[in-house]
Amino acid sequence: MDGPGKGLGEGGERLHYWVFGGPWTYETEPRGEPIGEDAAWLNEAIAKIGAVVGGRKTYEASGRWGGKNPWGLPFFIVTHRPEEEPEGGAFTFVSGVREAIERARDAAGDKDVHVMGGADVIRQALEAGLVDELTIIVAPVTLGVGKRLFEGFSTSLELEHLGVRQSPLATFIDYRVKRP
Amino acid sequence: MDGPGKGLGEGGERLHYWVFGGPWTYETEPRGEPIGEDAAWLNEAIAKIGAVVGGRKTYEASGRWGGKNPWGLPFFIVTHRPEEEPEGGAFTFVSGVREAIERARDAAGDKDVHVMGGADVIRQALEAGLVDELTIIVAPVTLGVGKRLFEGFSTSLELEHLGVRQSPLATFIDYRVKRP
Repeated sequence: MDGPGKGLGEGGERLHYWVFGGPWTYETEPRGEPIGEDAAWLNEAIAKIGAVVGGRKTYEASGRWGGKNPWGLPFFIVTHRPEEEPEGGAFTFVSGVREAIERARDAAGDKDVHVMGGADVIRQALEAGLVDELTIIVAPVTLGVGKRLFEGFSTSLELEHLGVRQSPLATFIDYRVKRP
Repeated sequence: MDGPGKGLGEGGERLHYWVFGGPWTYETEPRGEPIGEDAAWLNEAIAKIGAVVGGRKTYEASGRWGGKNPWGLPFFIVTHRPEEEPEGGAFTFVSGVREAIERARDAAGDKDVHVMGGADVIRQALEAGLVDELTIIVAPVTLGVGKRLFEGFSTSLELEHLGVRQSPLATFIDYRVKRP
């Protein structure tokens, strides 16, 4: 289970070793920088992003990112309770995935909108046909019973390979989502 | 659902386009040969294999491979009813995963044992600590509600990358399974 203090679930730090250049723990907090293929993928991705969409559970599981927008970009949080948006403008609360993506698209200008997750928001965006590209990042580990990206997903998607990279810490598979 | 005449499930031909160099259907049967990175991965894998283990459901879903051993290698089928082994010696029926792997190891000599699946046999082999290497082959498609390799799997596995390949039809991620 994920939650405040363990945003990626029990033992889930391993899933993001690639983000920080190696092992870290929730207790000590990550300090390192990504390296090699990890950095290459991340830098390419970040350079294209103009706005971000995330889910309320992810927001809460992260400890609300300590009240600071971690992206430094317009960041839209999908929630059933948009009236709970905190003051200060770090996060914009929006009541649905479609609306969040539309507002993020406006905010992103010429750049891309990044749907960071959680899984439920990603599934809704895919099912609504709002996704152009999908990257599956696989860490070399299985964690207990796990948590499924495609839980309850019943849409058949045709994908096309855009490329693959691998570091010791992760495999990145980039897909284009084909439209029917 | 899989079953005779649709061994990979509804629409599941796509999962094995890479095996036959492109599209095929259950109706017309596959005729092509693998090409490029698909052929490279398959040829390397096949060269190392000395015996094969498969599950009874996979055997039945394939239509019992028409009574002919498709591997041309000692082939052990895991089943609760080993007394149902057909005559002719094409397949050896064995009552458990561990026993099947032990017998396959003896038959393989210096070569590797390949656990082809189904998913249940792969999970049992992983949970029993009998697997040295694991390859995840991902076709660029999501198929309806899907069928999960790690359904009910609760073992945490530490893996190490051995390599990755990609063709237009599949991504191959080769892992070594680390022992505790």
